Amino acid sequence: MSTFVVIGGDAAGMSAASKAKRDDPDLDVVVFEKGEWVSYGACGLPYYIKGEIQTLEELVSVTPEQFRDERNIDLRTGHEVVEIDTERRTVTARSEGGETEQPYDHLLIATGAESVVPSIDGVDREGVYTLGSMTDGKELRDFVARSREESPIEQPDRGPACQYLENCSGPVAVVGGGYIGIEMAEALAANDFEVHLFQRGAHVLKGFSEATSEAVADHLRAQNVALYLDAEVEAFEGEEAIEAVRTADERVEVEMALLGTGVSPRTDLAADAGIELGKTGAIATNEYQETNRPDVYAAGDCAEARHVVTGKPAYVPLALTANRHGRAVGQTVAGTPTEGGGIAGTAAVKAFEVEAARTGVLDHEVAVEGGFDPLSETIEAKSRAGYYPEGGTVRITLCADRDTGRVIGGSLVSEFGEGAVLRSHALVGAVTEGVTLGELSNYDLAYAPPFNTTWDPVLTAAKVLGGEI
Amino acid sequence: MSTFVVIGGDAAGMSAASKAKRDDPDLDVVVFEKGEWVSYGACGLPYYIKGEIQTLEELVSVTPEQFRDERNIDLRTGHEVVEIDTERRTVTARSEGGETEQPYDHLLIATGAESVVPSIDGVDREGVYTLGSMTDGKELRDFVARSREESPIEQPDRGPACQYLENCSGPVAVVGGGYIGIEMAEALAANDFEVHLFQRGAHVLKGFSEATSEAVADHLRAQNVALYLDAEVEAFEGEEAIEAVRTADERVEVEMALLGTGVSPRTDLAADAGIELGKTGAIATNEYQETNRPDVYAAGDCAEARHVVTGKPAYVPLALTANRHGRAVGQTVAGTPTEGGGIAGTAAVKAFEVEAARTGVLDHEVAVEGGFDPLSETIEAKSRAGYYPEGGTVRITLCADRDTGRVIGGSLVSEFGEGAVLRSHALVGAVTEGVTLGELSNYDLAYAPPFNTTWDPVLTAAKVLGGEI
Repeated sequence: MSTFVVIGGDAAGMSAASKAKRDDPDLDVVVFEKGEWVSYGACGLPYYIKGEIQTLEELVSVTPEQFRDERNIDLRTGHEVVEIDTERRTVTARSEGGETEQPYDHLLIATGAESVVPSIDGVDREGVYTLGSMTDGKELRDFVARSREESPIEQPDRGPACQYLENCSGPVAVVGGGYIGIEMAEALAANDFEVHLFQRGAHVLKGFSEATSEAVADHLRAQNVALYLDAEVEAFEGEEAIEAVRTADERVEVEMALLGTGVSPRTDLAADAGIELGKTGAIATNEYQETNRPDVYAAGDCAEARHVVTGKPAYVPLALTANRHGRAVGQTVAGTPTEGGGIAGTAAVKAFEVEAARTGVLDHEVAVEGGFDPLSETIEAKSRAGYYPEGGTVRITLCADRDTGRVIGGSLVSEFGEGAVLRSHALVGAVTEGVTLGELSNYDLAYAPPFNTTWDPVLTAAKVLGGEI
Repeated sequence: MSTFVVIGGDAAGMSAASKAKRDDPDLDVVVFEKGEWVSYGACGLPYYIKGEIQTLEELVSVTPEQFRDERNIDLRTGHEVVEIDTERRTVTARSEGGETEQPYDHLLIATGAESVVPSIDGVDREGVYTLGSMTDGKELRDFVARSREESPIEQPDRGPACQYLENCSGPVAVVGGGYIGIEMAEALAANDFEVHLFQRGAHVLKGFSEATSEAVADHLRAQNVALYLDAEVEAFEGEEAIEAVRTADERVEVEMALLGTGVSPRTDLAADAGIELGKTGAIATNEYQETNRPDVYAAGDCAEARHVVTGKPAYVPLALTANRHGRAVGQTVAGTPTEGGGIAGTAAVKAFEVEAARTGVLDHEVAVEGGFDPLSETIEAKSRAGYYPEGGTVRITLCADRDTGRVIGGSLVSEFGEGAVLRSHALVGAVTEGVTLGELSNYDLAYAPPFNTTWDPVLTAAKVLGGEI
């Protein structure tokens, strides 16, 4: 009997374990998870903190008991793997009960990523949070609950707090204008905190187009988020607990700071075992998610993946890739070699009452390195028929190669509900299949007045950019 | 100086005229339109009748004056073309002022389609309407207004009328469960009419999958539409005006009947001139929308188009194709030969509070004729993350070729706002590009909890059907 060992019990790990066991019930599947939570939807944490989800348990799609009892997976929570020996084909796990050595025939490293804690003066002070785990989520929710208890808002329905309101909680700082930072700004503002958002660069959502970033920034300001751009945080000041955030230009008093400063792959275990890391710093893999060691795979937030536009390894740690690549590894281990498929760097975010998505290559330098001569254009179009009583505006930035007309990237933003995110589905297909602007603009996309204009904004974007080539 | 003559002033005709003149300002562009309205959004008529749009003018995207004054197009409304002479390269137009003969260098036939009036006993009675033109729309709106005046509803906010309500207007009949029939059922019910919908076949929305049709039918019933399936109307009974609809099984008293029994291409003018019609009955064209006569083009609801899945000519008269093919003809005539692009038979409809879309080939026979061995499956999936407070259900029917795994068609339905229609965009790309289920299921589609599940329902559908091959 063959043994498949998985390190890490979240998306990639549990997808692999479940698929392998389902496809080959004779396989011994052992999962080591250092924490107590498995298969949790970390993407839902901002909504738990916001108060739209009431318990952490709701974020869990399958419980440890279900994995054990229904899926016959030997899931060992509270077990941290401390060593991989790829020669002897064993892993060593440490738990309260001591150390155990576990042999493997196939091994998946799915150790995920951890929040980057920048080396800012005072970052260790009480009241400085990250949001990388369920525990982090619980602590932040407790903070919100505590603050609301201490200074209850008399008019809880009056909307997000702002610096001009008297009865707000907070103020609080969010450091970083990426997904987590923006989702947490929404979650905190919804709880009447006065939110100050600090972004080191000139734009929030830096992987998106400037047009998208600016639309989101405008909306954040309209929602009374105090937005500081080009504002690198130099210190979290205070006694024991944080009292203020300091940048080169500002000193803002806050009661709490949330770090949304990105994540980095957890690779120590792999590196110590001589497993190769890629240029991005994540674990290098081939198209089957295999590392440089035989029968050792890596998937999810600790691993690289091939970008469908550039063909090069990239590091974009997001949930779908983790699930998909984990599942592919499980299928491979169970006997059917399966490629995990490339990534397009697709991402989506809701920011208060706007939605945004991006896919492919938008960055000029990355495009040039990928062999493209990039040209881009942003269009603004109605999201529904002009005469239809509802509707808003979709802004689409499309990026294409000047020589071939190939669509290489897109970035979209609209009011929430006006379809920027689901419209990105069309662009994912286009960048994946190497479709040209001319081909895309001829797509027979669905049209009816309650959903779009006769030429969907995606088609308009392709027509406009196509007209410039 | 060269002359481009266009017959018909709606989507295809005016798109062609505008594009040709813009690309080549020296071109003489003459458009003959037999009515007074040009470039109108007939798709918006149900919403005008419903009362969500207040004037017919709102449906017009560009007025005759704008075409004449701003775009320098010689637009002649009230001019019906009665003859085309492809030898002498002239058309003859008739107006109140008499007949004129107009020479052309290039000619576009964009005569559109007309509502099919089935040969049912009593179809000429007063109170039997079609919805094919702005005039039809006006008459229907007047009918609604008149009825509401005669029997005003005391509680206008209590929702759609039903046969169990005392104060409803009507009852009225809708004959045909296609887009027009369903949109008109919504428009009439919203005005408190008791609506009886008669569908000749076993399913409404017959081009969609059965699963989609059934979901829509269930919803129509839930909205108190009396739905009669397999119910061919045999007579519209009454004295001068309609008093009842009779089928083999039923006799239902109604005050009005709306025929939504499809459209047929207006081809007499072309056929009389010796221009070839295709098997579908619409005007045959090549990939440049050229007919069998030199420099004579046909586009829009009177013409065939090439289906991207079967590669064969098809007749799917919808707005986007008319706009796109018209524009391509304009560009060709102005000197840049431009293919209009194929069609995927994509369509979308809102039915009360559900939305549905379809694309590609779903019909078994059509698939087999196209050389495919079709396999299909319907999945049901959450439209947003399970823990997210909003959300509904998306049902997707996917159809693929068993041998190659190529995706050949899809049909989607969800609550209105839950994304069935915009998700169809992804499937349009897939059927157009010949993507396989394996490739589609590996697409890096955008994910965030407010928009979908980690595996978007489109991916789940591809995975499930892919697992069966």
